[in-house]
Amino acid sequence: MTEQRKLTSQSLVVMTELVLPNDTNVFGNLMGGRLMYWMDIAGALSAMKHCGTPVVTASVDNISFENPIRLSNVVHIEARVSRAFTTSMEVYVQVWGEDPVKQTRYPSNEAYLTFVSLDSGGKPQPTPPIFTETAEEKERYAGALRRRQVRLILGGKMKPEEAGELKAYFLPKD
Amino acid sequence: MTEQRKLTSQSLVVMTELVLPNDTNVFGNLMGGRLMYWMDIAGALSAMKHCGTPVVTASVDNISFENPIRLSNVVHIEARVSRAFTTSMEVYVQVWGEDPVKQTRYPSNEAYLTFVSLDSGGKPQPTPPIFTETAEEKERYAGALRRRQVRLILGGKMKPEEAGELKAYFLPKD
Amino acid sequence: MTEQRKLTSQSLVVMTELVLPNDTNVFGNLMGGRLMYWMDIAGALSAMKHCGTPVVTASVDNISFENPIRLSNVVHIEARVSRAFTTSMEVYVQVWGEDPVKQTRYPSNEAYLTFVSLDSGGKPQPTPPIFTETAEEKERYAGALRRRQVRLILGGKMKPEEAGELKAYFLPKD
Amino acid sequence: MTEQRKLTSQSLVVMTELVLPNDTNVFGNLMGGRLMYWMDIAGALSAMKHCGTPVVTASVDNISFENPIRLSNVVHIEARVSRAFTTSMEVYVQVWGEDPVKQTRYPSNEAYLTFVSLDSGGKPQPTPPIFTETAEEKERYAGALRRRQVRLILGGKMKPEEAGELKAYFLPKD
Amino acid sequence: MTEQRKLTSQSLVVMTELVLPNDTNVFGNLMGGRLMYWMDIAGALSAMKHCGTPVVTASVDNISFENPIRLSNVVHIEARVSRAFTTSMEVYVQVWGEDPVKQTRYPSNEAYLTFVSLDSGGKPQPTPPIFTETAEEKERYAGALRRRQVRLILGGKMKPEEAGELKAYFLPKD
Amino acid sequence: MTEQRKLTSQSLVVMTELVLPNDTNVFGNLMGGRLMYWMDIAGALSAMKHCGTPVVTASVDNISFENPIRLSNVVHIEARVSRAFTTSMEVYVQVWGEDPVKQTRYPSNEAYLTFVSLDSGGKPQPTPPIFTETAEEKERYAGALRRRQVRLILGGKMKPEEAGELKAYFLPKD
Repeated sequence: MTEQRKLTSQSLVVMTELVLPNDTNVFGNLMGGRLMYWMDIAGALSAMKHCGTPVVTASVDNISFENPIRLSNVVHIEARVSRAFTTSMEVYVQVWGEDPVKQTRYPSNEAYLTFVSLDSGGKPQPTPPIFTETAEEKERYAGALRRRQVRLILGGKMKPEEAGELKAYFLPKD
Repeated sequence: MTEQRKLTSQSLVVMTELVLPNDTNVFGNLMGGRLMYWMDIAGALSAMKHCGTPVVTASVDNISFENPIRLSNVVHIEARVSRAFTTSMEVYVQVWGEDPVKQTRYPSNEAYLTFVSLDSGGKPQPTPPIFTETAEEKERYAGALRRRQVRLILGGKMKPEEAGELKAYFLPKD
Repeated sequence: MTEQRKLTSQSLVVMTELVLPNDTNVFGNLMGGRLMYWMDIAGALSAMKHCGTPVVTASVDNISFENPIRLSNVVHIEARVSRAFTTSMEVYVQVWGEDPVKQTRYPSNEAYLTFVSLDSGGKPQPTPPIFTETAEEKERYAGALRRRQVRLILGGKMKPEEAGELKAYFLPKD
Repeated sequence: MTEQRKLTSQSLVVMTELVLPNDTNVFGNLMGGRLMYWMDIAGALSAMKHCGTPVVTASVDNISFENPIRLSNVVHIEARVSRAFTTSMEVYVQVWGEDPVKQTRYPSNEAYLTFVSLDSGGKPQPTPPIFTETAEEKERYAGALRRRQVRLILGGKMKPEEAGELKAYFLPKD
Repeated sequence: MTEQRKLTSQSLVVMTELVLPNDTNVFGNLMGGRLMYWMDIAGALSAMKHCGTPVVTASVDNISFENPIRLSNVVHIEARVSRAFTTSMEVYVQVWGEDPVKQTRYPSNEAYLTFVSLDSGGKPQPTPPIFTETAEEKERYAGALRRRQVRLILGGKMKPEEAGELKAYFLPKD
Repeated sequence: MTEQRKLTSQSLVVMTELVLPNDTNVFGNLMGGRLMYWMDIAGALSAMKHCGTPVVTASVDNISFENPIRLSNVVHIEARVSRAFTTSMEVYVQVWGEDPVKQTRYPSNEAYLTFVSLDSGGKPQPTPPIFTETAEEKERYAGALRRRQVRLILGGKMKPEEAGELKAYFLPKD
């Protein structure tokens, strides 16, 4: 009778990749595009864990590349669904580099990707609601509305003046 | 005595790729991450054409995936520098899918990526100014300031209330 | 009522590739086979642009590798249909290497590839005629007959003494 | 003054891979060799986490492939060091397949791989001891001696009759 | 009326691969996993040569990596069926490294892999018997029974005390 | 005192590859460019076997693709040096497709590639003479002069009327 509640923590996907020569630029660092390739797969697998259907990438939010990841270092990716909308899900993806010899882990970047749940005919279908537990999960859940407005504005599907959540964020109350 | 002026049109890079089985998801469409991999390379080559030094990816702006590109279709990418900042460049990347049999071309997505010019020691170095010619180039050049503020805010390097360009964009003058 | 004339210039395909470590030999130069892989794809896409059907590679003419292309350099490929025969097309493919830092472009090689237009059942089908505009296009169009005779002879499908076009080429008139 | 004790649990590496078309055989199942490629990398990363030096693969024990992993399914790999010998480490690698739509996980195979810790000159060097906590870890730690004897015998470096641990295993005490 | 006898020598598959940068570890040597990928393909092709049906990898016996194979060196693999069981085949795979400049060949490793013959529905089906000719082939044929018992025990499908062939091998007759 | 004579048969390289999904076109057949990639590597390894130095691809003669090779079929390549010139070698490469289930082998194509022997500084250096044994080897050895003239003419390094060998071939004696 009772349906299983789906938690953010249940959608966790952990991915580990080794940086090989063909993944690097002239400085011997991981190319940004190669990293985005892995982030997209990790994000899609996390979204599928939540909705239990095939998914496609709908959008990728601004990504800022902080610390370069070196050849022969390790890429550590963690992805989890931060919020489910009607037929789409926002996935939070974090990336660290790891020097496997010095045993140090350094933050590389993070991003929000959205995926759409599709039925077997390729049409969008409803996703189950998601439940948060930790304070950090709740904060990401709340922020997802504002990020969604940014996406809609940037995609030309919402006028800036309609973005209430976003306006409140940019304009200090006084 | 006169230095060659560098134009946006001189930084154009055209890339053509064929979608092979390993690039596709369960629906037989190009995976978003694979496309971002190509966009990053096209963008980097365009930035290098402008500054004449190696570059690294600094950031990728919001990307919205519109029309899926099918297996055996063609990916057509065009990249050109929209504005040069002190040591970084914003590159505008457009992507179309092409059905090589039906001879139709459909827009897939577009994005702004930023790259940093590096000297041989890997330190950022100044980029030459860029000159625009067409109305569209001038519009992208002007909008680059606002997009830069979004990046700085999203990257935690600028407070939202300091983003004058951006605030003017979100708040209708009255 | 009037049918669109198909021009050589409409079949142009531009491809840009970055030379990565796995593409290089022990000297750090692009391997010939890897380059031929890209030339074949560029040529096939150009042929498909002309005939609007799937195509398969029928033959590749003599390729001479002039200047090696270095690791981290760029491969710039241009392909266009030089002549259409009954069910096959000859495509002229040119390759340059580019040093993206020094901003220099150097010729690497060029080749003629032929492709056959196939229907959905995999049977050869007629290709539309092609129209040339520039002097260079007209010259390549004219030379295509002679190159075709070379292919037929080398493929054992024509006797050397039957190759009128070719004989005239080798034997100075006196 | 006190040195950090290194635990089996600290060497855990979790790897997640998506089965793409090029990874599959004619039945649409993951090829054994492709899986071993990933297991080897997961194992090496786990060994490096323990010893903090580069490592090379010394041997791979018998692997039995139980349940095939389907195209578009997920490969979930967990690797952890089961025992450290003088300069080598035994790593226990477990593999599951996951159907990301049906949300089911099924065991695929498991294996013991050994890696040798190398100094910067490529010479074997001592590894730190490892400490176990759970009953399962202790059992794998104990069994490692017997598996080592099998490797030495199979590698022609020990005579069968010298393998005390192994003989006791095969011969029921009576 | 007479059926063709199938010989071990008829199942020989020779594979030659060049070690490229992406195949190597931090020491510039071929990664073990990449080698196992090639060994699995060579073994499968040899098994298919014998049984004339698709096959899947059932198990891989202990592999010991002796001499590392260097970047730009050549991997030379030979695979042949050593014995056919009811529906499975044991394939003996040998690997050498070759320095193509110094013209030296050095042993790298060897392994026994087993493959199962499948019908078009993916069900195991009988394999034809195999006939040996040389003394070495006969020795491998005989040893296959013992190795099979090791696999069954390691796979938990046979109790150690039931493995008569194996016990005789480990226990010196007295 | 006596130097080892180098034979054509000693330069034989046998390569076996499996056609995977990413190697195929829309008809499920091996793409020509992918095959040329393998032919180039096989040819280079054969040339290195003869001269014992690194080599680079100088040219590839006309290749005619006869029978398409299917997905999951096997590519069987044999390469051997047909003649050594001053610093270059002509290598004869033959390709067959194999259906591993039906056990049939069919000719796919053949080509002559030339490679240049390089010293460690990348400069051309003399190659040892090659000795032929069979009638077929001798015929290929003799024909190499004529093919070399074709290459020189096509490469613009010889005028057609100077190609004595070639002219004799095209003009029936009377």
